[in-house]
Amino acid sequence: MHFSIPPTIPLPALQARIDGKTKPPGSLGQLERLAQQIGQLQQSLTPSLGQPQLLVFAGDHGAARAGVSAYPQEVTWQMVENFLAGGAAINVFARHNGLQLQVIDAGVAHDFGARDGLVDAKIGFGTNNFIEQAAMSEDDCQAAIARGAAIARQLADDGCQVIGFGEMGIGNTAAAALLTHQLTGTPLADCVGRGTGLDDAGLARKQALLARAAARAALAPGAPALSVLAEFGGFEIAMMAGAMLAAAERGMLLLIDGFIVTSALLVAAEIAPAIGDYCVFCHRSAEPGHQAQLRALHAEPLLDLGLRLGEGSGAALAWPLVRSAVAFLNEMASFESAGVSTQA
Amino acid sequence: MHFSIPPTIPLPALQARIDGKTKPPGSLGQLERLAQQIGQLQQSLTPSLGQPQLLVFAGDHGAARAGVSAYPQEVTWQMVENFLAGGAAINVFARHNGLQLQVIDAGVAHDFGARDGLVDAKIGFGTNNFIEQAAMSEDDCQAAIARGAAIARQLADDGCQVIGFGEMGIGNTAAAALLTHQLTGTPLADCVGRGTGLDDAGLARKQALLARAAARAALAPGAPALSVLAEFGGFEIAMMAGAMLAAAERGMLLLIDGFIVTSALLVAAEIAPAIGDYCVFCHRSAEPGHQAQLRALHAEPLLDLGLRLGEGSGAALAWPLVRSAVAFLNEMASFESAGVSTQA
Repeated sequence: MHFSIPPTIPLPALQARIDGKTKPPGSLGQLERLAQQIGQLQQSLTPSLGQPQLLVFAGDHGAARAGVSAYPQEVTWQMVENFLAGGAAINVFARHNGLQLQVIDAGVAHDFGARDGLVDAKIGFGTNNFIEQAAMSEDDCQAAIARGAAIARQLADDGCQVIGFGEMGIGNTAAAALLTHQLTGTPLADCVGRGTGLDDAGLARKQALLARAAARAALAPGAPALSVLAEFGGFEIAMMAGAMLAAAERGMLLLIDGFIVTSALLVAAEIAPAIGDYCVFCHRSAEPGHQAQLRALHAEPLLDLGLRLGEGSGAALAWPLVRSAVAFLNEMASFESAGVSTQA
Repeated sequence: MHFSIPPTIPLPALQARIDGKTKPPGSLGQLERLAQQIGQLQQSLTPSLGQPQLLVFAGDHGAARAGVSAYPQEVTWQMVENFLAGGAAINVFARHNGLQLQVIDAGVAHDFGARDGLVDAKIGFGTNNFIEQAAMSEDDCQAAIARGAAIARQLADDGCQVIGFGEMGIGNTAAAALLTHQLTGTPLADCVGRGTGLDDAGLARKQALLARAAARAALAPGAPALSVLAEFGGFEIAMMAGAMLAAAERGMLLLIDGFIVTSALLVAAEIAPAIGDYCVFCHRSAEPGHQAQLRALHAEPLLDLGLRLGEGSGAALAWPLVRSAVAFLNEMASFESAGVSTQA
């Protein structure tokens, strides 16, 4: 598995173009840095954001049955049905903000049959319980990455320039906590949160179970990202990592959601460190482990709204800001064209 | 001048409706509080946001000629022309985010003649220099408030339920600094910032000039808001205060932008303290005095992007979040309707 993801190259004329717009220099703050980033990524003074897609990867986790979540495992497939029916938060946000939504069965423990609007990329009916054994085989891990990459490449071939990442999987904050602990070196306790809403006793149980999983796997610090992914990851997390790598390789822009999506990015970034140049960090999750991830990735998210839903909801909510950043670059008048006086 | 603006009334069924949606309770963070606020304001479980308008109030400040800004005064009218031609940041953001834009000449020092798309509500050709004398007479101040109120009432009559506030006026961060100092009791130095981009010497000059203005006016702490407004305010600030008061009286939602718009709200809130129930604080400005305003108003803004442009740009950028908050309330399935299991 090899992905060629070079760092993006500065385009000096971009800053001049941004500063020539009819506004005080720097006054659009993070939106100016975003315009700069996207222009540089596309090596264009007039970047575009064609056919933006929001992909929701769904998968189940064996550990969910061990009590790491406030919700029963069947909620994963029930929520996939909700996505297909258009009734979930991500449906509403994608619809209102102009993102096409696709749902991908990466490994839900449920037989959906052939369904309109559901991409069947199932690796298995949920992972193994990582408290007792590795979540998946190395082969399944590679297969999940390859399928994710294939999905992203097909979108690129079809003209898509932006992928927003979302996920659904009861138990996946537990998997993300273990990945984050192992890949960033953050103490496990600082990576574990309430997920969908555990109470204090539930949180203590989750902490203890994840400590057992970490002790069982006994990975060395700096263990290869793919080994860590196979030990703890979900099929949806592995598939997202593959899709991210292929999307960046094809020069697409990646909208990074919260804690679970960023755990996939940690894997991708270990394989191809320059992938950060292709990412917009959409929001700061209320799930505590997200802070450790953002620090490790030197990321400055756009939104900080106390969201902790997943599904790509933060990516869909931040998308209008990304679009606005490119729009000001492409559509605003310059001091010269508008006949506005500059600073004395 | 009297405005009847009662506090909004709790609607207990709203929280149950929000908690019944297919998401963990509380997982949409600030968006849930926003949905709660808007439902409560409209006393509706299915609130609406019809015909949203972004109003840009433009006015000139006599003090601009004394050197409080990095830009010459004629930039005010040149930017109004830019708004009318569709080339400014606020045009781009309003267009992409689905807000109708109206530009209001509250008191620009320029004769535009009759122009399509420009509302002529001119009180005068700019204010007096508040370093030497009161910015405007009490009569002009009342007239500006009344015209602002009339504009908001006309919009309400036409079915508009949301007004976003924006402004343009070279020198108006200086006016807003004095208003903020006087109305919140914050030391003047903490209210004065670089505005459109003063360098260190320019900032020191602005500080000194505004200290002179404050000493000249010598207002007592707790002086009536309308006296403070007449001493330091711009016509655009007074007109916004009037529009805010009338809009809240008519039960509209107010999108509050940054430092200048919030200075108008400080005036309105002194006249009708419950107006805060009708306001969405759209962003945290990089202009330092905005922090003092937000503290005084107990406000928690949606965005924190380092913006310091004005024009209503922060309101236009936050608008999709407001729309998304109402959309999830109106459009998401419930656990019951979608057949999704709830917490164990």
